[in-house]
Order: sequence, then C-alpha cells, then structure tokens
Amino acid sequence: MNEAAKTLDGWYVLHDFRKIDWASWKQVASEEREQIINELHTLLSNWEDAISTESGTHTIYSILGQKADIMLMLMRPTMQELNELENAFNKTRFAEFTVPSYSYVSVVELSNYLAAESNEDPYQNPHVRSRLYPTLTDAPYVCFYPMDKRRDGQDNWYMLDMDERRSLMRSHGMIGRSYAGKVKQIISGSIGFDDWEWGVTLFADDVLQFKKLVYEMRFDEVSARYGEFGSFYVGTLLKKEQLSRYLHV
Amino acid sequence: MNEAAKTLDGWYVLHDFRKIDWASWKQVASEEREQIINELHTLLSNWEDAISTESGTHTIYSILGQKADIMLMLMRPTMQELNELENAFNKTRFAEFTVPSYSYVSVVELSNYLAAESNEDPYQNPHVRSRLYPTLTDAPYVCFYPMDKRRDGQDNWYMLDMDERRSLMRSHGMIGRSYAGKVKQIISGSIGFDDWEWGVTLFADDVLQFKKLVYEMRFDEVSARYGEFGSFYVGTLLKKEQLSRYLHV
Amino acid sequence: MNEAAKTLDGWYVLHDFRKIDWASWKQVASEEREQIINELHTLLSNWEDAISTESGTHTIYSILGQKADIMLMLMRPTMQELNELENAFNKTRFAEFTVPSYSYVSVVELSNYLAAESNEDPYQNPHVRSRLYPTLTDAPYVCFYPMDKRRDGQDNWYMLDMDERRSLMRSHGMIGRSYAGKVKQIISGSIGFDDWEWGVTLFADDVLQFKKLVYEMRFDEVSARYGEFGSFYVGTLLKKEQLSRYLHV
Amino acid sequence: MNEAAKTLDGWYVLHDFRKIDWASWKQVASEEREQIINELHTLLSNWEDAISTESGTHTIYSILGQKADIMLMLMRPTMQELNELENAFNKTRFAEFTVPSYSYVSVVELSNYLAAESNEDPYQNPHVRSRLYPTLTDAPYVCFYPMDKRRDGQDNWYMLDMDERRSLMRSHGMIGRSYAGKVKQIISGSIGFDDWEWGVTLFADDVLQFKKLVYEMRFDEVSARYGEFGSFYVGTLLKKEQLSRYLHV
Amino acid sequence: MNEAAKTLDGWYVLHDFRKIDWASWKQVASEEREQIINELHTLLSNWEDAISTESGTHTIYSILGQKADIMLMLMRPTMQELNELENAFNKTRFAEFTVPSYSYVSVVELSNYLAAESNEDPYQNPHVRSRLYPTLTDAPYVCFYPMDKRRDGQDNWYMLDMDERRSLMRSHGMIGRSYAGKVKQIISGSIGFDDWEWGVTLFADDVLQFKKLVYEMRFDEVSARYGEFGSFYVGTLLKKEQLSRYLHV
Repeated sequence: MNEAAKTLDGWYVLHDFRKIDWASWKQVASEEREQIINELHTLLSNWEDAISTESGTHTIYSILGQKADIMLMLMRPTMQELNELENAFNKTRFAEFTVPSYSYVSVVELSNYLAAESNEDPYQNPHVRSRLYPTLTDAPYVCFYPMDKRRDGQDNWYMLDMDERRSLMRSHGMIGRSYAGKVKQIISGSIGFDDWEWGVTLFADDVLQFKKLVYEMRFDEVSARYGEFGSFYVGTLLKKEQLSRYLHV
Repeated sequence: MNEAAKTLDGWYVLHDFRKIDWASWKQVASEEREQIINELHTLLSNWEDAISTESGTHTIYSILGQKADIMLMLMRPTMQELNELENAFNKTRFAEFTVPSYSYVSVVELSNYLAAESNEDPYQNPHVRSRLYPTLTDAPYVCFYPMDKRRDGQDNWYMLDMDERRSLMRSHGMIGRSYAGKVKQIISGSIGFDDWEWGVTLFADDVLQFKKLVYEMRFDEVSARYGEFGSFYVGTLLKKEQLSRYLHV
Repeated sequence: MNEAAKTLDGWYVLHDFRKIDWASWKQVASEEREQIINELHTLLSNWEDAISTESGTHTIYSILGQKADIMLMLMRPTMQELNELENAFNKTRFAEFTVPSYSYVSVVELSNYLAAESNEDPYQNPHVRSRLYPTLTDAPYVCFYPMDKRRDGQDNWYMLDMDERRSLMRSHGMIGRSYAGKVKQIISGSIGFDDWEWGVTLFADDVLQFKKLVYEMRFDEVSARYGEFGSFYVGTLLKKEQLSRYLHV
Repeated sequence: MNEAAKTLDGWYVLHDFRKIDWASWKQVASEEREQIINELHTLLSNWEDAISTESGTHTIYSILGQKADIMLMLMRPTMQELNELENAFNKTRFAEFTVPSYSYVSVVELSNYLAAESNEDPYQNPHVRSRLYPTLTDAPYVCFYPMDKRRDGQDNWYMLDMDERRSLMRSHGMIGRSYAGKVKQIISGSIGFDDWEWGVTLFADDVLQFKKLVYEMRFDEVSARYGEFGSFYVGTLLKKEQLSRYLHV
Repeated sequence: MNEAAKTLDGWYVLHDFRKIDWASWKQVASEEREQIINELHTLLSNWEDAISTESGTHTIYSILGQKADIMLMLMRPTMQELNELENAFNKTRFAEFTVPSYSYVSVVELSNYLAAESNEDPYQNPHVRSRLYPTLTDAPYVCFYPMDKRRDGQDNWYMLDMDERRSLMRSHGMIGRSYAGKVKQIISGSIGFDDWEWGVTLFADDVLQFKKLVYEMRFDEVSARYGEFGSFYVGTLLKKEQLSRYLHV
C-alpha cells in the first residue's frame, strides 16, 4: 500500500457562485429593492460576528464574464454551520433574484509534504493556525479554481511513492513562495466532499499575478504531468458598503 | 473468458436528489404550506411502516452546495416498490416545489472478493443479512458518490484475473476496516441499472472522516489505477421532526 | 481494407423517453384529464393495429429515477412511419404534459459474426424473422442502453480482423446464451442514425438478471477491452390498462 | 513542416436544427397559424429565387427523435448572405414557435487527396462546379454528422505525411464510390468556422444505406484509427407543399 | 524546473456572446424599442471615448449559427474597468432581451518565444505597443476560439524544454506570417482567468482565410501534437450605425 499524505484541516469552506437576474430585479419597486438590500446587509452583519469571535469568515467578489455575477466565500468550523448559512441565504428575498451557477464544498487543508518533523501539536502552532483559520483581507482581486492530481497511464500521481511526491511538491512550492507578498493562496481539500480533489483560492492586488503564477507553475512537473484543472473564476472585491451601488439599477 | 466476481444482492436503492424552489415555496400561503408539509409527513410516516416490518428503510439529508438541497435515500425489496414510491412522491404537492437534480438506481451488493468459502447459504447468515438489508441510523453526515472500475489501456480492471483482483481488493478492504466505528459504508451495484457501476453511501458522525477515508484509499492501487469517480454529494441529517423548521420561510 | 461485418436489418425502432410534468398535469381539471387520457388510449389502440397485422409493435415502461418517467418503444418497417408516429404523438394533448429527456433511433440488427453459412435467403428463415420483427411480451422489467465498440490506441475493435472479431463475439455470445429464458435481448444498430453504434434493449421477469448479465459480460474481452457504454435506463411495465392509474393525481 | 491538403471551396452552408414548441403552436388561433405558415411560405419562395439563379439552394427535413424536429439546410456564395437569411428567419413569427437545438457552419469542400494533377483552373471544371455548388434533389432521407480527424498519441492524422494520407484516403474513397447511385454526399469544411473539422450530409432513397455506408467505412483505417464523430441526425424530406400538413394541429 | 515562457501583457479583454430573445423583443412597443436602442447607442458612444483617448477599444459582430447572435469584444487597461462595463451593460434595458451564451476573460499577450533579445524596455517599443493595445479596424469577418497546449502522455507541451518550444513556435509563426495582410490575429492569455489557456481572435476581409490559416496550422506539429481547441465562433461586422437595422423587427 502506498503511503498517503497526511493533512491538517481547518475551517470548512463554501464557495457559492450566482448570477443576478437583472431583468426581474429591475421590475421590483425601488422601495422594495431597498428593503431587500437591507435584509441582505443584516444577514452579512450577522455573519461578521463570526469574524470578530474568530469562528469563521466570509467575503464577496463580483465575477467577470458570464459564468457568475457574484461569489460568496463562506468559512466556518463545521459543515453543519455552513449548511445552515447556505439555507438561510437561500431563504432571503435577495436569493430570489439570483440563479445558482456553481458551488464548491471543501475544508482548508495543509499537507505534510513540505512540513518539518516536529513533536509539538501543529494545531497549537500560531503560524499553522493562521493558515487553517485564515483572516481574509480586502484584496482587490480573487481567483478560484478546482483541481485534481492526474491518474492517467504513466502520469499517475497516486502511484508515485511518498519521496517522489515530496520532492516534486518541494520544487512546486518554491514557485509559490516566489510570489509571497503578491499572491495569497488558500488550498482547501475536497476529496469526498465535491467533484474535484482541491479548491484553490488566490488573492492579489494585481490580477496579472494570477496568470503569472499559474502559468509558471504549469511548466513545473507537478502541474505539467500531474495537474488537471476545472473552471477558473476571476473577480473583483465587492465590500458590503459597495453592494448598494452594485445592486443599484 | 475471465472469471466474473459473484455478488450477493439485497434491497434495491433509490437516491433522489432535489433542489427546493424557495421562491415559489415562499409565495404559497402559510396555511397551505402547513398542509403540504403535513401531507409530506403522512407520506414519510407510511414509509416508516416498512422499517418496522423490516421490509425497507429510508433517510433524508440536507445537501451542501448547489448540486442539491435534499437527498432522499429509499430502500425496498423490489424495484417495482421503489418505482411506486417514487411516483407517489412525484404526485405530492411538496414535489411541485422541488426540482430533480440527480438520482441513482442500484441494489445493495456484497462481492465475493473478500468472502470466505462456505457451504451455508449466505442469505441466511445474520451478519450478511444485516449488510444486505441495513438499518439506517441517525448519522449526522452522509456522503454519496458513484464510481466505475477503469478499463483504459494498461489500467483495465476487467482484464485482471480473479486472483489479482482479490488480492488488490483485500488490501483495499483493510483501509476500509481501519475506519470501522468512524464510517459506515453501503455499497450498491448499478451495472445495468444506472450510468456508473457502483454507488457508495457513507455515514459518519465526523464529516472529516469521509475525506480521510477517500483520500487514503486513493493512494491504494484499486483506486489509484482502477477507480473512476462521479460527483460527490455531502449532507447533514434532516430528521422528520426537523423538516418543518427546514421548510419554514 | 478490413472486412466489415454484414448485417440483417429488421424493423426501425424509436425509443422515446419523457418526463411527466406532474405540476401542470395536476392543474388540469379532472374531466379534461380524462379526455386527454382517452385521446392517448385511442392513439395506442391505433398503434395496436400494427401488432395485429404484424407490421410493427410498441410497448411502454415506467422508468426509475429522474432520467425519465416513461419510455415509449416503437417499431415499424420504415423510418418514415416512425417519424409520422412521433409527430402524431407530439401533437397530442398528452404530449403537452411531457418533457422529452432522451430518444434513440435504430434498426433491429443481426450480425453475421455468429451466423452459419447458408445458401437460403435469411430473410425467409422464420427464426431470423422472429428476431428481426420481434413480438414484445409483457415482461415486467426493461433495460435500455446504447453502446459503442472502442477505437482507442491498442483497443481498437475496428482494426481487428474478421476472424479475431468472430472468435471474440462467439465467447461473448455464450454468456448471452446462458441467460436464455431469463433475459430477452433486442440489438438494434444505429451507426449513421444516432450517437452510439448500437442500442441494447433487455426484457426480464427478474430485474436482477440485467445486472448479472451485464456484469458478467463486462469481464469478457469484448466488453472489457472494446465496450463503451452510454446511459442505462431501467423500468417497469406500464400496460395500457394501467395508464389511467399511473396518471391518476 | 508537414504538407497541408489543399481544398477547393464552394458555397457556404448553414445547417439549422430546431424543435417545434407544439404546445404554444396549438394555442395560436387557427387563422393566425394560417398567416404564420403563409409568411413562412413567402420566405421560402424568396429563397427559391436563389435556386433559379444558381446562387444558392436550401432544403428542409423532418428529423427523427428528440434532438430536433426540423432541419433547414441553407447554402449561399457568401457567409454574409447566410447570416442575413438566418437573421431574417429568426425574425419570422414562425421562429417564435421553434427552439434552436443545433446548428453547423461550414463551406462545401473538395480536397486534393484524390484529385488528378491538372493545369486547368478546377473552378472552371463543370464536374467540380457541380460538386461545389450542388443541386439538391428531393431525396426522401437525409443524414448529417460532424467529424474530426483524430490527433491522439499514435493515431494522429495530422502527423502523417501527405503520401500516407493520400493513400489512406484513396482506399476510403473506394468505399464511398461503391455507394454511387445509392448515397449522395456533400462534404463541407468547418475548421475555423465551427466545433468540428467537417460536416457530412448524406442523401438517399433508402435510409438503410446510411447505416451500411458509415458502418463499412468504420472498418477502414481512415475512420477506424483516425475518425472522431459528433451527433448523427437522420430525417425525412419535408417539401414546401408538405409543410402545412406537417404543421397542422 | 522547466523554464517558463515570459509574456508581455496588454489590455484586458472580455468576449461576451449573447443570443437575442427575438420573441420578447418583438412584443415591445415600437416606440419603446427605439428608446432601448437609443440607450444602447449612448452606452456605445461612451465606450468610444476610450478609443479616442487610447484607453481601450471594442467591437460588435453578428455571429453565425445558434451558438450566439452577437459578440461584444471589449478591451480595457484593467480588469476592474471591464467588470464595470460588463455590469453596466447587464443593467441596460437592451440586456433584458439577450441571453448570455458564452464569455471569455483574457489579457492581450505576446510571448518571448519569437522575441529578439534586447536591452530596451519592450513596453516602450511602438511596434510592441501597437500589438498589446491594438486598434480594431472594420474587418468584415471575425473568428474567435479558445485553446490549450496539450499535456497528454508523450504529447506534453509543458514538459518540452525552452529550446524545443522556441523552435516549434518559430515554424508555427512562419505560417501565421504567410497570412500577413489577409488575417490579423490577437492572442490573449487566459491561464488563471478562464477555462482555456489562450483566446485567439482573428479578423479578415475574406472569411475563407480563417479556414485556410487554421487548417494549414493544424498540420504543423505545434497544433497537430500539442493543440487542443474549444468552440469556434465566426461572425460578420455589426457597426453601430447598422445596429438599428439589425434590431429592426
């Protein structure tokens, strides 16, 4: 039996992509629209309580192109809580004017490929904790995509032994590290939860850094031979205080 | 001719995934909604008769993400009965507020890869019976996914001889057994019934165990070289007495 | 040039899968529903004339799961007639309450892989005729799936010479024959007519025999290396006299 | 650099497949339906002017199965004209009762694989002209499918040198020629225009000849190793004078 | 680690494909339609300001076939601006009569495969600037398609070393150059932004040149072994002053 990588697992994550039904939205009376936006603001304010108690976080982005108009990214300590937030959102009046277009269920994950051996409990390590239970800053741009490690003939990641995988991941990680300060990344595992094996969420001030990072990595063997990629979503930050303007018609 | 595995087959299974049309549901008058929920409760109570007479079982989960809102899992001794239950459900008023999003037709299955030789009728063996005609407990989390054994160039499960398959399955089964007490699994065969060869339904108290189990297995040759996986659905238990709250708008 | 198999071709076949729009159907006044069902009965009675004159046949099954609610299987001596029946059905009032979900166009086919050499005209042979122009009995269960022979690298059916294909088909046919009396199968060719190369329609008293047959065949080289399969549909018989009950809401 | 085949290019072609929305169509008052059919007849009569001036042609078929109800096949000297016809059709009242289901954009094409060397301008050759700017006869049956030449590992058509391709095409063409008088075929190139590399439109008195031709070709190396096929559409002729009956409800 | 190509990046690009909902459009009162077209003209006039200040450009084409009716191609210095234009367009009254059918997010890109070594800043080079921030002329025809470089077994572009890739790209570029004056092409990179790695937009006076160029390139190893292609869209120019006629019903 081949040795499986070990993981540390943090907050559960729901990426929820939706289109706005602008035609219906415009038909609503202006006063009623205001009420609907207020209801949405109240919901978001409630969600912010989790941020202040460090028991979760969330962010909203406006997505480019037709795949979606907005992305909600929600993080909580349990999947049960995520499910409740999702159901509550679905029952809002605002949700009536959205059309679900994609979603992704995962859990923030760190693997042991690059980890140093240690005797201490990693879940007590502040650096580890800051990555498993991340603070989301107001980065102007986001990029999300799901991915698999390939299992195809000679290019089968899961048939490589632990040492080969560790060595390949080390070189891969070096590219990621060279983007420190330019791109912040959150890797979340989704094997058993959703249709791909991982979700990757990137944040940056300069959207071009997403392309540079992903392109450079594609020439690295981990991506070149073993990476399979789903749809890419790119968007710009939509802060709570910008929502009214965004929804103004 | 290559030797086919032999199977023991239990109850027929229908997994029925649906989205709730919340916008329409909210437009229904509150009193009428109450009636619709009552009709649903009556139907579910009728289904419970099968549990008490050990002639079937069922469970309902709330699914995370946009693939579905709820999953009904129904088990009965014949496919004719499943079909009748499905048609009856489709005619309820509640069904008018649901949108079918996925379904899966299969039969609970045990294969002879791991079975000891025996002269007794396995269908009389209480342990075997408890797996073919399972009791569903109130596990907080469910995971469902369909899968195939790969037939692709050098990675062709069905061209391996019986001994190789048995040996590979033994090692695979050891991983499953190491999750005893953490994850309960029901394997159901669907060759000739639906688009994948098997459905896998997992139950757990801790949702993270789904990811750990499926990830660990992926490094085992049976999955690494021979496994093909469909969509993964994960959800939280929705007991009959929680339905009213779930449907409250 | 590689030698192509030769075929005998019988009736043209249309498999027509539809969902019932139960919500709309329930909104129709009960008296009007009665009229619509009567119109449907009249159409089916007309179709029965073809059975009595041995110029075609048809059957209806209730399909399990969400892929479809009903399957109409229609057979006629010409494609022109099938097209007329299809258009007539589409213009019925009943059709307004159905949503097309899948269809398949093919012609009943016998290949010469297993045929003995003979000087007589096979189209005059009563046994051959009974297979090209079949009588459909009231088998409680149906299974339909389309399939291809693979053309992929080393696994290319169409690059095998006639002798290899004949020898492989012989072994494959032996499995089929071992299910005689349990499963009746109709093979229909669809190269040039629809998206797969063949349609397979199986009939049985015991639905489990579908799974046993298809699973056992999958270990045979013809399926293991050369078979590609589309969606599987399984259903229970819906006789004309059961339709009113089925459509009762 | 590998030598590319050279092509002669004739009329531009639009295949336009649509479903009829019978339910809506039936709701229209009978007199209004008559007007809509008359408007359609007028449009078709205008299109016939192109036939009489040899500056284009068109035909309509009723398609079997659920993929489409009708196929319009339009040919014109420029793509600009096709676009105008398409837009004009989309603005008719009849188009409101159709649902687009598939379309294909291409240009009638002859390749130089089978052409004899010659010093004369092939575009002046009457035989060549009759194939680039074809006359469509009233063949009772049509078959349409798009296709690619495969580029997959060892089976890469575009890596073969010109001589190998020419030799393979010669053998392939011999099969086609053996169906002369039974099947008329129009090959249209669509690289750069649509999602497959070619469209194939076949016409025949006997629909079975489509299956025989495509099946026999599949055993030839050009198809067996190098052919990739899209959806197949088969239909029966719908002359202008049959349209009223076809649309009668 | 394999050496990645370096890129120069210009304006961000949004290709936005939409169908017109002609049935709804015709139901609007003629005067109101006029207002909606006027609102659209105003929006387009605003967009033209960017052209005059060399801070962006745009164009509109009428697309052939059912994949779309119109394509908007928008270019701006930042993705934030593109997002704002897209949202503004979505809020117009005209947008209510369109159905999104495809979109593509990318950035104009030049790679260093064919670039001469130089000490000067390429972003100051007028020739480079004219390609990164292009002027769109009134070419009668457009062709758009997305593409990937293949990573499949022995055909893995990203595992080739820089010298091999550069040599292959040189030969590929020679084909492109032989179409100078006939086809103008804009390559835009989309790794990290959308589902394919590049978008290709071609402009020509003669639509046949698209087919000739793409077909000739397909025999070149870069495309033959390493090219993967998405959907192809082809269309004819729709100038602002032609819009009223196009939308006249």
